[in-house]
Amino acid sequence: MPLKTPHKILLSEDEMPTQWYNIVPDLPVPPPPALHPGTLQPAGPEDFAPLFPMALIEQEVSQERYIDIPGGVLDIYKIWRPSPLFRAHRLEALLDTPARIYYKYEGVSPAGSHKPNTAVPQAYYNHQEGIRKLTTETGAGQWGTSLAFATAQYGMECEVWQVAASYRQKPHRRTMMEIWGATVHPSPSDLTEYGRSLLAIDPDHPGSLGIAISEAVAMAVADPNTRYALGSVLNHVLMHQTIIGEEALLQLAKVGETPDVLVGCTGGGSNFGGLAFPFLREKLAGRMSPTIRCVEPAACPSLTMGEYRYDFGDSAGMTPLMKMHTLGSQFIPDPIHAGGLRYHGMSPLVSHIYELGLAEAISIPQLECFDAAMKFAQTEGIVAAPEPTHAIAAAIREALACKESGEEKVILTALCGHGHLDLASYEKYLSGEMVDLDLSTDAIAEAMKSVPVIAG
Amino acid sequence: MPLKTPHKILLSEDEMPTQWYNIVPDLPVPPPPALHPGTLQPAGPEDFAPLFPMALIEQEVSQERYIDIPGGVLDIYKIWRPSPLFRAHRLEALLDTPARIYYKYEGVSPAGSHKPNTAVPQAYYNHQEGIRKLTTETGAGQWGTSLAFATAQYGMECEVWQVAASYRQKPHRRTMMEIWGATVHPSPSDLTEYGRSLLAIDPDHPGSLGIAISEAVAMAVADPNTRYALGSVLNHVLMHQTIIGEEALLQLAKVGETPDVLVGCTGGGSNFGGLAFPFLREKLAGRMSPTIRCVEPAACPSLTMGEYRYDFGDSAGMTPLMKMHTLGSQFIPDPIHAGGLRYHGMSPLVSHIYELGLAEAISIPQLECFDAAMKFAQTEGIVAAPEPTHAIAAAIREALACKESGEEKVILTALCGHGHLDLASYEKYLSGEMVDLDLSTDAIAEAMKSVPVIAG
Repeated sequence: MPLKTPHKILLSEDEMPTQWYNIVPDLPVPPPPALHPGTLQPAGPEDFAPLFPMALIEQEVSQERYIDIPGGVLDIYKIWRPSPLFRAHRLEALLDTPARIYYKYEGVSPAGSHKPNTAVPQAYYNHQEGIRKLTTETGAGQWGTSLAFATAQYGMECEVWQVAASYRQKPHRRTMMEIWGATVHPSPSDLTEYGRSLLAIDPDHPGSLGIAISEAVAMAVADPNTRYALGSVLNHVLMHQTIIGEEALLQLAKVGETPDVLVGCTGGGSNFGGLAFPFLREKLAGRMSPTIRCVEPAACPSLTMGEYRYDFGDSAGMTPLMKMHTLGSQFIPDPIHAGGLRYHGMSPLVSHIYELGLAEAISIPQLECFDAAMKFAQTEGIVAAPEPTHAIAAAIREALACKESGEEKVILTALCGHGHLDLASYEKYLSGEMVDLDLSTDAIAEAMKSVPVIAG
Repeated sequence: MPLKTPHKILLSEDEMPTQWYNIVPDLPVPPPPALHPGTLQPAGPEDFAPLFPMALIEQEVSQERYIDIPGGVLDIYKIWRPSPLFRAHRLEALLDTPARIYYKYEGVSPAGSHKPNTAVPQAYYNHQEGIRKLTTETGAGQWGTSLAFATAQYGMECEVWQVAASYRQKPHRRTMMEIWGATVHPSPSDLTEYGRSLLAIDPDHPGSLGIAISEAVAMAVADPNTRYALGSVLNHVLMHQTIIGEEALLQLAKVGETPDVLVGCTGGGSNFGGLAFPFLREKLAGRMSPTIRCVEPAACPSLTMGEYRYDFGDSAGMTPLMKMHTLGSQFIPDPIHAGGLRYHGMSPLVSHIYELGLAEAISIPQLECFDAAMKFAQTEGIVAAPEPTHAIAAAIREALACKESGEEKVILTALCGHGHLDLASYEKYLSGEMVDLDLSTDAIAEAMKSVPVIAG
């Protein structure tokens, strides 16, 4: 007999967690360090200093299990946090499953996704250290809007390099960044040497996330009052997102539930890590035993088909080398609609955890994802962003398996954003124009050739 | 010293009101009845029966002060209700005002506005009476998406006539309606005699809300299994929206506040009535004494510049005659961005209350509204729909007046929807292309000529 839980499980602002969780000291094996690309020695704080403020560099390598969230960040978090946890009663009824499905909804943030959870502290720490401007890249635009919102809260400037194809096709995300005062450039741009070199070859270059990172990094290192902000991949970014999982733990406890299965979509890994790490802590401590599953797009399967190697985070090779699952930093995935999952690599921390066998991974093609999203919208009412449609599809797979087996599993997932600015994707799906593209293994093999060969 | 209130004042699902409030029996003078356009006698239930189910006709003329919300409606409301009440701490700080500003946010609904509050019960009662399909009109698309969502919850069909100009310019709203299974036609369409007559004159006719209403009504009366649904104006629609004000009363009580000023944007009047009527009840009973203020666009000022006359609700003259403030049913307002406020008339109930001196009204031009919305987005984080930018602008005017006078007034408003699907308006504002159009008083005078001359 399913528990009679409300549709929404809410926390008051007083109940909001006041610490982020750093999973690193709890892991049975420490993650491999980032390497300086020249010396191939572990990168030190001085290697990161042109890019990030010292407080974030310390968090990146911290061995503290918990880090206090500053009051100046908590104040901004309270604009939308704690976020609601929903019980998907109506989706469960449609699927006729004995499973109980819960989803943590991050679309309530101003930017409409989980990204402000890290954009706000990143802006805060930079502001504390006297930095006046942040640069970043954005693909679909979720991260750019989030950083624009965050910098506006502290009166800072924000300059965003948006992948040119998105810049042209998605003017609305750009408008949202401009509402919060950001300056937006298409990438490649004529503002950097790398950008100019690409435009010389192709004036209509569509750009890529890796290229946009290179440009934003180049602009940051050239100005002592400017730093760079990354929306995923790095340890401190994932740590800021753990507020998602910490809240979800409190919310599930309110209704007396512990999850049997966690599913989270993975692009760079920040949404997944944010949801899963606090639950993994509980699992490592023997207090619960959920299966933890990553879901990635079939068109960009860095965990399930990439190699675990040292590679660059960007296309121009300007970042430190990170050991991660990668399809090769020159890999440009097919233009699927989940732009936020089209990244060649996977967070080193998620990659490490996957290698340790602490999480499993599957990939799902986009038609199944949009089919799942339609069922979700019609029952739960929320039109999801293309990225979390992968999480929804995985949750539905699991719920249907429960229907077969009769198991009353508790499934937890994160709905990391709404799709109000992604309706063109749904239009393609509804008109029958959306297709599942075959993954080009040749393109992966080609891109892997440029990955440095490094022992260890 | 301002009270230390949280940013969000939440209610649990258990605290959600379970009755709608009908203000009619509490008014010192009863509102004038609707008239049959042929006989000019008060319209009876039989006149409304081809359009609406009996339960809604009864609500339309009910003298009961409270009507129970059915369980089948409460279940759906709980997808997003109770909605949050926010204290605008950060906007107050920007304005440096001693006023305390609260806003009730209805953008958390699946369709992104307050409209599902009535779409859901309208679909529910029709479904209860065996109706299989609902027709309606939509301009900007907020109402059409809401009814599409609502009919999907009860497995009904939904057919929407969307003003042709919006249909062409705003494909995303149409996509959202289609996600929830609705069929969408541009209006004028070749499906009705009236539509065909207009297309014969101009194949590219841009349409209007009044024309779309005529088409949706014509299609409903032609089929015994189909009824029509209206998103504003009528008594039962405003009554369904009173859940907004009832919740806000409970939420303000939680933080020990009573409002000094209420401001609400008015198009057809449903958002305003929903917020204001429960507070007007308290005022009439002597339990509080807020100033209650309607805010309308300077380009479509039905209260402040229209006449209080019997007029049609649609352009073809198919509806009963209603006594209301009107600019003339043939009036087509300038194409301002707040499409939801571009209606020639005002709810008869709001018009009556205004005539009784129980509410006041002002109009605000759109540039001031978008300027206010930018301040709001930068501080409170929410990008508002063009319609509630009028409410924000009026709240800011009041807060700045408090700064002048030093008064610590409590200002309450309703933010009736988000602007995620209206970013093209913000783009116009940001690029400097948005202008305040002069109101054509000649056009109003011309449109008023066609308003029937009826005594009383």
